[in-house]
Order: sequence, then C-alpha cells, then structure tokens
Amino acid sequence: MTKKFHLHKARLETLVDGVFAIAMTILVLEVKVPTISDRFSALELLNALAHDGVVIFAYFVSFSALGVFWVWHHKLTEKITEIDLPLLICSLAFLSLICFFPFVAALFGRYPQNLTANVVYVVLLGLILVSQTLYFWIAISRKKIVESMTPSDALVTHRINLMSLAIFCLSLSATGLRINIYAALTCILVGLILLWRFRRSKKLSAKLSKN
Amino acid sequence: MTKKFHLHKARLETLVDGVFAIAMTILVLEVKVPTISDRFSALELLNALAHDGVVIFAYFVSFSALGVFWVWHHKLTEKITEIDLPLLICSLAFLSLICFFPFVAALFGRYPQNLTANVVYVVLLGLILVSQTLYFWIAISRKKIVESMTPSDALVTHRINLMSLAIFCLSLSATGLRINIYAALTCILVGLILLWRFRRSKKLSAKLSKN
Amino acid sequence: MTKKFHLHKARLETLVDGVFAIAMTILVLEVKVPTISDRFSALELLNALAHDGVVIFAYFVSFSALGVFWVWHHKLTEKITEIDLPLLICSLAFLSLICFFPFVAALFGRYPQNLTANVVYVVLLGLILVSQTLYFWIAISRKKIVESMTPSDALVTHRINLMSLAIFCLSLSATGLRINIYAALTCILVGLILLWRFRRSKKLSAKLSKN
Amino acid sequence: MTKKFHLHKARLETLVDGVFAIAMTILVLEVKVPTISDRFSALELLNALAHDGVVIFAYFVSFSALGVFWVWHHKLTEKITEIDLPLLICSLAFLSLICFFPFVAALFGRYPQNLTANVVYVVLLGLILVSQTLYFWIAISRKKIVESMTPSDALVTHRINLMSLAIFCLSLSATGLRINIYAALTCILVGLILLWRFRRSKKLSAKLSKN
Repeated sequence: MTKKFHLHKARLETLVDGVFAIAMTILVLEVKVPTISDRFSALELLNALAHDGVVIFAYFVSFSALGVFWVWHHKLTEKITEIDLPLLICSLAFLSLICFFPFVAALFGRYPQNLTANVVYVVLLGLILVSQTLYFWIAISRKKIVESMTPSDALVTHRINLMSLAIFCLSLSATGLRINIYAALTCILVGLILLWRFRRSKKLSAKLSKN
Repeated sequence: MTKKFHLHKARLETLVDGVFAIAMTILVLEVKVPTISDRFSALELLNALAHDGVVIFAYFVSFSALGVFWVWHHKLTEKITEIDLPLLICSLAFLSLICFFPFVAALFGRYPQNLTANVVYVVLLGLILVSQTLYFWIAISRKKIVESMTPSDALVTHRINLMSLAIFCLSLSATGLRINIYAALTCILVGLILLWRFRRSKKLSAKLSKN
Repeated sequence: MTKKFHLHKARLETLVDGVFAIAMTILVLEVKVPTISDRFSALELLNALAHDGVVIFAYFVSFSALGVFWVWHHKLTEKITEIDLPLLICSLAFLSLICFFPFVAALFGRYPQNLTANVVYVVLLGLILVSQTLYFWIAISRKKIVESMTPSDALVTHRINLMSLAIFCLSLSATGLRINIYAALTCILVGLILLWRFRRSKKLSAKLSKN
Repeated sequence: MTKKFHLHKARLETLVDGVFAIAMTILVLEVKVPTISDRFSALELLNALAHDGVVIFAYFVSFSALGVFWVWHHKLTEKITEIDLPLLICSLAFLSLICFFPFVAALFGRYPQNLTANVVYVVLLGLILVSQTLYFWIAISRKKIVESMTPSDALVTHRINLMSLAIFCLSLSATGLRINIYAALTCILVGLILLWRFRRSKKLSAKLSKN
C-alpha cells in the first residue's frame, strides 16, 4: 500500500503461533472415540483403543513434527529485521502448508501402509522444509538479517537449512524406490545438488570471513 | 461505558489474528480423508485424492484470499490511532464475515460449478472488501489517522481501497451476466460510481496538497 | 503457589482473546453445506440455503452477542489492576460459559421455536451477564481498581452492569411466561431486586462524592 | 541452531495460551445437539438434554482441569528466566498431552462408567502432572530460575509440585484397585516414593537456608 511495504514482525508471529496452536489441536480430532457394543466392558474399549494405536502414535509423531517446524520458524524469524513482501508471501505459503498438515496427517494415520498416503506425507514435509530454507535465503539476499549477526553467521544458518533438506532428500530415496527407480534417483540427485550448494556456500563463507 | 469509548488497538489485533488463524485452519476441515475399498491400493487412494483436486485447489485459493485480507486489515489498522465505537462495530462486522468465510469456501469447494455457490462466494468477498473500505473511510472522517500520515496520504490509501472495490465490481459483471443482464449492469454501474468517487477523491486530494 | 497469588493481566487477556476467537469461528461450523441432488442446479442450492436461513441468521446474532461480551470483558479488565485468585476463578467460569456458548447457539439454531432451546439460550446469556457483574463487583470489594478511577467512577460502572442485568431479567419475563406464571414472576422479582440494588449503589455513590 | 539454544519466553507463552484456548473450546464439540422427533416439543428436548447431563457435567470438570493446568504452567514459567532446549522439549511434551486431553475427555464423557476410559483419563492427568513437575525440576537443576527467587523458594515450589503428584498417586489407588491389587499397590508405592523425595527436598531446603 505504501511504496516500501513491510509488516510488523509481532503481527506475523502472533498469526504463526495461532496457526500452529490450532493445527496441533486439530490433529487430535482425527483420533475418534470408538463405538463399542457393551458400554461397560473395559476389555472391549481397551481393544478398540489398541486398534487405534497407529492413529494415536501418528498423532504424537505429527505433533513433534509441528513442534520442530514451529521452533525452527521462530529461530529463523528472530534473525530477520523486518518482513517485506517476498518474505510475507513465503511465510503465508509456509502457513498454508502447515494448515494443510492436519489433513495429510489424518490421511497417513488412516492408511499408514498405503504408498500414496506415505508419498503425500513426505512431499508435504519436503515442501515445508523448502519454504523454510527459501524464507531464510530470501532474507539473506534482501539483506534483512539483524545487525548482531555477521554475514558469515547468517550463511551458517542457511547451510544448516540446506543440509537438513539434503539429508531429508537422501533419506527419501527409500520411499522413492517404492514407486520406481527413477523417483529414487531423482531424490538422490536433488540431495546431491543440495550438498553441492552446501559446499559452495561454505567456500563463500570462508571467503567472507577472510575479508 | 465511559463517555469517550475506545478500545486498545492491541486487543483488537490479537482477536483479529486469532480469528484469521482459526478461519485459515478450519478451511482444511472441508478436505475430507477419502474412504477407499482396498486399504493398501496406492492407485485407488491417488484417484480418490485426484477426484478431490478441486476441493484442495479451492483450499489454497481461499487461504490466499484470507492471507490478503489479513495483511490488508493490519496495514489499515497500522494507520489508525485508536479504535472508537464505529470502528469497533465495523471491525466486528468484518470479523463476522471472515468467520463466515470457511462455510462459503466449503460451499464453493463442494459445488464449484453451481451458480448459487459462485454468487454467494463473490458476494461475501465483496462484503469483506466493502467493510474494509468503510473501516478506513470511517477512520478518516472521524480523524483517527496517525499524525505521521498527512490527510493527503490517508486519501491515497482510501483511493486504493475504492479502486480495488471498483475493479472487483467490474470483474464481477461476468458472473452477474450468468444470472441475468440486469445483475451484470448493476455490477458495472456500481463499479462506475466507485470510479467516479475515486476521481472526486483525487481532486480533493490535489486541493489538499495545494493548501 | 506463593502466598499472595496473582496472575499477569496480559496472560488472562491472551487466553480470553483466544477463547473468543475460537468460539466465534466455531459458531459457523453449525452452518452445514447442504446436500442437493443436482450438483449444477443453482435454484436447488438457493432453496437449500434459504431453508438454512434461520441458522445463518442465528450465527450472526450469536456472533454479535459474543462480540459484545468480548468488548465488555476488556472494558472491565482495563479498570482492574491485577488478577488475584477470586477474580481468576470468576474469569475462568466466565470463559467456560463462553466456550459452552457455541453448543447452546447450535441448539437454538436447530430448534429456534422450541421452548427448551430458547430457555437454555437465555439462561446462558443471563449466567454470562451475572459472571461479568460479579467479576467487577469482586474487583471493587477487593480494591483492585486502577488508581485513575475514583471509587465513585467504579460504582458507576458497577451500576451499569446491574442495570443491564435488571433490564435483561425484566425482558426475560416474556419468555418466562411461556413456561408458567411463576417463572415470569421470578424474572420480574429478580429484576426489581437488581433495580433496588442499583438505587442503593447510587445513594452510596452520592455519599462517596460528598466526602 | 546457534550453540546456546534458547527461545523467547513470550513465544512459548503465546503458543501455550493458544493451545489451551483451543483445547478448552474443542471440549464442547463433544456435547452434541440432540436429534428429537418433534421439533416443537420442549419436553422431548429437555429429556434429551438431561440424558446428555453426564457429558455436559464432564465438560465443566474437564474445563476446570485445563484451567488449573493453564494457571499452574504460567505460575511455573513466571519463575523461569529463559527456555533452553530441555525445557522446550518438556513444554512441547506437556502441550501434546494438553492437545490430547479433549479426546480423552470425550472418551470419558461417552463411557463414564467404563474402567478403561477412567484409567486412560487419570493416566493422562498423571502424565500432565509429571511433565509439569519435571519442567520445574529441569529449570532448577539447570539454574534457570529468576534471581528474585532464592534457591530455597524454588525448592518450595518444587515440593508443592511433588506433593500434589503424591496426593494424586495415593488417591489413584482406589481406581487401581478396580483393575487388580498390584495396580493399587503400585500407585501407593509411587505415592510413597514421591513423599520420601518431598521429605528429602525439605531437608535440603533447610540446609540451604542455614548456609
């Protein structure tokens, strides 16, 4: 609206906290109260709950994933001075993936051994990782990093983002193999490209600290 | 309660953030986990998800719309000094429309080619735009604009609101035509009135900067 | 936990904002997307929505009620210095009623002409009003009012609370009459007692300003 | 991400407030609007609601439990200077249990006299108490207590946590007895161990204040 667009960080962080709080709580809505024939039979209810064990386990796994993403986003945002338009769009894209997460977690919990459900789950995790890496990379390239951080420190954070993305891609190749050999090879290839970028960033960082 | 009613901006903004966070997350509840006959068939689940493709696409469209409204509201509120009663009522009306949005988005996602669903969707979008334009216009006419903004700057923001409303009305005429010729004409007429008000506001602004 | 229990006002206000934001958004979950036989028939969907007109109207009424309660609670909390144990319990009781509101609103929207649904709705509204009046009265009697307010000003706010409660009780007598004559008389009696307390508080206030 | 990991307390508190607000509101989703045959029969609706009396009562009990946990968590966090990694993990584990609470409360409300539902309910309550006690104990052992508190004061808070856990365990033995004698004995044993730790902590505290 004004020529230099920017949004208060506090506003974005409140929205992020709200979205995460709700996404975390909505996860549990997929754990349904089982219907049993004998209302007073402790054994029957126990069996019904044990049968839902995978769903309950999937709930805690998905909750942990959301917890990690939440901490990660705040650690990155902490190092950014202000939210301009590209960073805002990247954040909202990240949030739209987070809001979509409960659906994918429910899909995974319902069909834990179905290949499609698995692929959708890991692809979403991958997209979230990509949006986070992109978020910080945009911040670096637009010089929105707080002054207390040296450019070299900022690159270290960027490298950690790249590295976790690379590890994720390489570990994905096992799932990729379940589709076909090309999917597995693509995962490995993307992983290697990320590792190569990681190396290049390391050299750049070494050069920066010399000057 | 006191003679001069006003509410802390921080309170309103927290409520707005909360409502948006929940409305965004509730959107995904409409994307249902499909029921398939063979639990382990990857192909069947893929087909079921592809069949829900429109719903998933509608989710991301609606999320973007909410994201734009959220940013817009905060950009406007930033320029307002305090929330008095008319501004509060206008904000709550805006929030009630935002809370209503997930229902309308669900209606649109379920019946994407149904004229009624389309009309309800665009009418709600229109009402939200109107409530926002009204919100800032009330703030201007009640002199609640922050001092760092000149009256001329405030009018520029108001003009942008008017212009987006006019563009929305004119682009609506295509949907209006699907009902009948009068609906389309009404859309064009309202669009033209808004453009005329936009022009008048521009002249007023020119006069203000002269003095 | 410590001898003098008190909670930061900011914490309570964030929880209140969160609960209201969710209660407001949950209201809309009761408005169900109608199921129609012909997916492309605009007329059939329009009729189905018109049939849900009462539910949609009830949504906006309930939203307004929540909006009023939200503003009212913040206006009262603004005048309180700190939240001690009785005020905290009173606030949590108030919040439990607010969280219960979407259920009662859904009941009312489903059975708008059923006496039980009506009575439950107005009784809940009454309890919310009582909890608010009690909240401020506890704050006055425990001397937790901010210094910028004179005791006489605080009593004015208390009187407004009493008065709105009295008006609510008297207007309730019409609904009470639908049960039997005694219910209507009880409503009128409670209303009169509140008006009498209102008068007594006015005299006390007059005495305070003399000294 | 940096060598010394820590998270702003404000961020954690906003997430905690959000999660509690949603968990409290989701509790009410389990109270379903009853379906009655005669839309206008006040008596039939009243009977249907009375039949759901246990569910409604369970709602208010669960709401109170969440209220107590919310206050307790904020009272503990108030005394902590910063959130490092172990405290963060402990907090997220606590939040995952809180998010899981609405499911367990729904299970309890649906099958109030079923032993399994009862055991699951009390075990979750117990785990929440444990995570809270652990949370503060980690804070003490990692010296993250605010300076205005003496080590002796911090131990008093820790003792109160231990005591409430012990009381909870001992009162649980009645439920344990409904499974078998060993479950009851385990509850009593754990309760006694906690009381013994309580005593030891008291002696340590006495020693600290002497020095």
